[in-house]
Parts: sequence; structure tokens; C-alpha cells
Amino acid sequence: MEECIFCKIVKGEIPSEKVWEDSEFISFLDAKPRIKGHTLIIPKKHFNTLMDLEDDISKKYIGAIKKTGKILMEKYNAGGFNVVLNNGKVAGQIINHIHFHLVPRKKGDKKQLDLVNIE
Amino acid sequence: MEECIFCKIVKGEIPSEKVWEDSEFISFLDAKPRIKGHTLIIPKKHFNTLMDLEDDISKKYIGAIKKTGKILMEKYNAGGFNVVLNNGKVAGQIINHIHFHLVPRKKGDKKQLDLVNIE
Repeated sequence: MEECIFCKIVKGEIPSEKVWEDSEFISFLDAKPRIKGHTLIIPKKHFNTLMDLEDDISKKYIGAIKKTGKILMEKYNAGGFNVVLNNGKVAGQIINHIHFHLVPRKKGDKKQLDLVNIE
Repeated sequence: MEECIFCKIVKGEIPSEKVWEDSEFISFLDAKPRIKGHTLIIPKKHFNTLMDLEDDISKKYIGAIKKTGKILMEKYNAGGFNVVLNNGKVAGQIINHIHFHLVPRKKGDKKQLDLVNIE
């Protein structure tokens, strides 16, 4: 069985541009960014979807998103951000390791983000 | 100062079609759904954005999203869902009371969801 690409990123077997991490989460730039600063936030332990997530990790996930958001807002001089979870294949989840997208936004960027699209 | 529309929904002063609630969160159908079952999940206490959220509420938010998602997947016979947070005006946040969108998805719905757009 081939190992999950995000598990390989966690182990450092695949390089990534890290934004933030602690013992349980890591956030890193998306390899195919939809907008500058497009970042993914994942638990280091593998869970397929939100439905599989352990309670202890669930409780810390928003905190990890918040910390990542603060860093990105400062780094990209953003006024806010979008957070997106595509939960399940039918919802556009491509990598089978839960990941929230976080996209810093600026006034006037007028992006038509298609993060939640599936085709 | 005019009171927040979502605070009025929490108090029952404005009607809403409730999906789920507990003592700290409520989820209800979006008044302008982008897709059938489009639901908002909010803390009952008012917080403007993710940055203002109390730690205790942060820790329970993913659990509230998960419970709402389970109900909607069953109700709408969905195979997954998208979760979206527009955090800050520049990111498309219109109501100044933090709210996660949850959109149930089915195979073949092929929706080009513009939940994270701002124009």
C-alpha cells in the first residue's frame, strides 16, 4: 500500500514550505496555490476525513488554523482569509488525509476562488 | 446600536430552520442557500471572527461542524460536504458574527460553488 503524500510531508520525506507546526499539526504552502499564500493545515497523524478525526485532535484544529491564519495575514499583509475543507471525494477531496485550506485575502484581489469545486 | 442578525436568530427573535443545536452552538439553514441543505454553524455567543473566538468555543467548534455534517449527509443523502469560513470583510464575510458554511454534496451535482468569492 502506497503511503499518503501528506504523511510523507509530515515525516520530511517530501519537501514542503512550512508555515507553522507544533507536535500535532503542521501547515505548509499548497504545491499548487490558487492564490499567493494558499496553505494547508493538517494533523500529523493520518485521518481520512472529519468523520474519522479523534476528539483530542478536533479540539485543537481550530487553534492550529487560527495560528496559521495570523502568520499568513502578517506575512502577506492580508486583511482576512478563507478557510475551506473539502470533506469526502464527492466534495473535491483529492488527498485522503484531512486538510483545511487557508487562503489569505486582500482588498481588491477579487479572486473567484474555486476551492470547493469538483469536476 | 443595531443587534446582530445571528444573535437575533439565537434568541428566536428571527425565525430560522434549525438543523442542530446544543448549549453553545446552533446550526440552521442559510436563508439564501447556494445549494440544497446549505447550512450555517455559529456559536451562540457573539464573536466577530475566528481571531476573537474564546478558546473554549474554539475547542468545540469542529465537534459542532461534525455533528451538523452527519445530520445533513443523512438528510440529503450526501456523500460528503464542503466547509467554508469567510473570515473578515475582505474575505467575503457579510454578517459580523463568525459562521462556518456547510454544504452537503452528492455525486454528479457538479456545483461551481462561489462561497468564497467577494465582489
